[in-house]
Amino acid sequence: MALVVQKYGGSSVADLAAMRRVAARVIERHNAGDTVVVVVSAMGDTTDELLDMAGELTDNPPAREMDLLLSAGERISMSLLALAINEAGVSATAFTGAQAGLRTDGQYGQASIVGVVPERVARAVREGSVAIVAGFQGLDYDTDNVNTLGRGGSDTTAVALAASLGADVCEIYTDVDGLFTADPRIVPTARRITSISSEETLELAAHGAKILHLRAVEFARRYHVPLHVRSSFSDKEGTWIHTSKQEDTVEAPIISGIAHDRSNDKLTIVGVRDQPGFAARIFSLLAGAGVQIDTIVQDVATAGNGFTNISLTIPEGDAAAAQEVLAGAKEELGISDLQFNPNVGTLSLVGAGMRSHPWVSAKLFDALFQAGINIHLISSSEIRISVVVDDDRLDDAVRAVHTAFDLDADQIEAVVYGGTGR
Amino acid sequence: MALVVQKYGGSSVADLAAMRRVAARVIERHNAGDTVVVVVSAMGDTTDELLDMAGELTDNPPAREMDLLLSAGERISMSLLALAINEAGVSATAFTGAQAGLRTDGQYGQASIVGVVPERVARAVREGSVAIVAGFQGLDYDTDNVNTLGRGGSDTTAVALAASLGADVCEIYTDVDGLFTADPRIVPTARRITSISSEETLELAAHGAKILHLRAVEFARRYHVPLHVRSSFSDKEGTWIHTSKQEDTVEAPIISGIAHDRSNDKLTIVGVRDQPGFAARIFSLLAGAGVQIDTIVQDVATAGNGFTNISLTIPEGDAAAAQEVLAGAKEELGISDLQFNPNVGTLSLVGAGMRSHPWVSAKLFDALFQAGINIHLISSSEIRISVVVDDDRLDDAVRAVHTAFDLDADQIEAVVYGGTGR
Repeated sequence: MALVVQKYGGSSVADLAAMRRVAARVIERHNAGDTVVVVVSAMGDTTDELLDMAGELTDNPPAREMDLLLSAGERISMSLLALAINEAGVSATAFTGAQAGLRTDGQYGQASIVGVVPERVARAVREGSVAIVAGFQGLDYDTDNVNTLGRGGSDTTAVALAASLGADVCEIYTDVDGLFTADPRIVPTARRITSISSEETLELAAHGAKILHLRAVEFARRYHVPLHVRSSFSDKEGTWIHTSKQEDTVEAPIISGIAHDRSNDKLTIVGVRDQPGFAARIFSLLAGAGVQIDTIVQDVATAGNGFTNISLTIPEGDAAAAQEVLAGAKEELGISDLQFNPNVGTLSLVGAGMRSHPWVSAKLFDALFQAGINIHLISSSEIRISVVVDDDRLDDAVRAVHTAFDLDADQIEAVVYGGTGR
Repeated sequence: MALVVQKYGGSSVADLAAMRRVAARVIERHNAGDTVVVVVSAMGDTTDELLDMAGELTDNPPAREMDLLLSAGERISMSLLALAINEAGVSATAFTGAQAGLRTDGQYGQASIVGVVPERVARAVREGSVAIVAGFQGLDYDTDNVNTLGRGGSDTTAVALAASLGADVCEIYTDVDGLFTADPRIVPTARRITSISSEETLELAAHGAKILHLRAVEFARRYHVPLHVRSSFSDKEGTWIHTSKQEDTVEAPIISGIAHDRSNDKLTIVGVRDQPGFAARIFSLLAGAGVQIDTIVQDVATAGNGFTNISLTIPEGDAAAAQEVLAGAKEELGISDLQFNPNVGTLSLVGAGMRSHPWVSAKLFDALFQAGINIHLISSSEIRISVVVDDDRLDDAVRAVHTAFDLDADQIEAVVYGGTGR
């Protein structure tokens, strides 16, 4: 008798047949004696269709009205799922984000959940009902306005609800069987990860693994919600994401997997004065222009004479703003050149206890060298090493590193069942 | 500088092009200096599509979840209309029924509006914005649940908002140029009614004229909201529905128009004991079975011997229930026979001061006689005479009466531009 929060993405409820499959899965769990709360995304392409209509009408939609528009998709899917479950004889009650007590901070389009008051959800399940909650949305109680949480917001809704209800597990249903050691479309022999820490999952998600939303994992880690990422198309066990500290203390480094990301551009600032304050000035200019910075590498040796080069990777979408603000400050900062390279990608190797084992980076660089792949930039954290390489060699890099670290499975395990939801 | 509430039905916002036309119309009014509040229905067939999906999943949808589902349609249209108006440089703010302060009585699918607290709408227009409100929905404040108002509910939303805001006029936009003296599809020479009382409009709406929802007209009459029914596809003046008493006191009877209705069946109860209490017992049985009764005619002469016949017209949908409950009470009431005729239709002639002018009924009956049309039943009110005739002669009857009362226009005025919204 567990309390389970299940989240189903858009591909799991793409049409009415898929909706019925989800209903059957929910009912099976309910009939087994578990208490089930379901968070559901909009059906299939609904959100994209709403975005398309809005885009045809205007390039500058008011944020408040966009959120009202987009919140309609989950209202439809949650209501229909409740209908399908009721039809099978099990009581199901649907709740909007507002009704489920999801309180948000008023940031349209990318709101954060500031609190959950799930009284009505708790009452519904206490009375024997399955509760169905609209993902991706909440209510700003200061203004009584609807906020959406941005892409991946339904994952966050599920984890926040699980935390506030004290759920035993939050199951994230998707169209693959869990997290894999690499993207199975690039590495067919990628292995399913059976168990992984939330910290490693965060690193994977932050560096290109698209299966889980970063904020959802952060929420799960902070509130100690065990996550189980699994397929809505099969009954296989998926990947468990644990949040307990003791499991993180490992002797030998355990390589969990490889993430990759093509969405960053590389920017090199040539000839920055190597004096205190100049780098800080650059980063405050970039922050002021809303530029997110991923990797930063500063290399004194390559420039010399009291000058240094700074290389960064930034999201593609921020490249124009970054170039503009830096070009405007070229003289002030004495920058001799700005070099921009959009044709790069990042490979990130993630695993516990990596930093204390220098042979991990040695093996990584050797694998790339053997494969004839140049490294542009390197950065690392406690549990991750990232390398920036040429975009057109990124897939080769992922495969080479996957093999070098003995991650290949004996047979092909990964099955991708559909598209990806949010 | 008037305060105008405009209501646009589903056919007026059927697609994005139509949405832009509505936006242009709203903006024109706003720029002319008027304060504009817009109530909008779901786009085109959205509601029917949602109903179809629900119907594929279940025959017995829970009422609460159906209302959550159906309310999504208006959320989409109100948001998109706000986007289109904003794009043209005029500020527009969208409100759900709940946000606009429409409070309902908790009757899912056919809720009544029990109050309107339009603070946010009033604030938005005070600040120079156009307010866009989702029609057809409100919030049950006792339970925080969404209610829909049933078909025609957007009209009622508009009138209720107009009443609570003290609007100068409530404009109901539709796909014809107003109310006509008869259905232009049956009588091509039907004339547009320029001005009519709310009482007459009520009689027309109650007896088959589909252009306005009954509850909306009742609301307008009770709260003295002037209505202007007009086309969203043209700039022509439509029909003004006035609610002031003095205009109703007329010398000569003014025939406003002819409504017709095919949706009723006729039921004749043969041989009811003509004693006090027996008729009352029949009507209490029918009321208990949820049967709505339209026309009732009791005729002592046709049966005789202390027995009487009672004929009624009832909505098609109630016919089975009525027959069942009466068949079960046949012996108790001494009924000798139940006769049922689904092939009837009702013609209603509506006009002020009709009862005090007996030549009106004489002319009506003569017109039908000349056209060779049999009359099954007759009933009348202060401002209406209705006759029940054979279904297949109903169109002929409407045309004959229309001509007899000199209602024909010299040329064809009516243009039907699209489908009908709600």
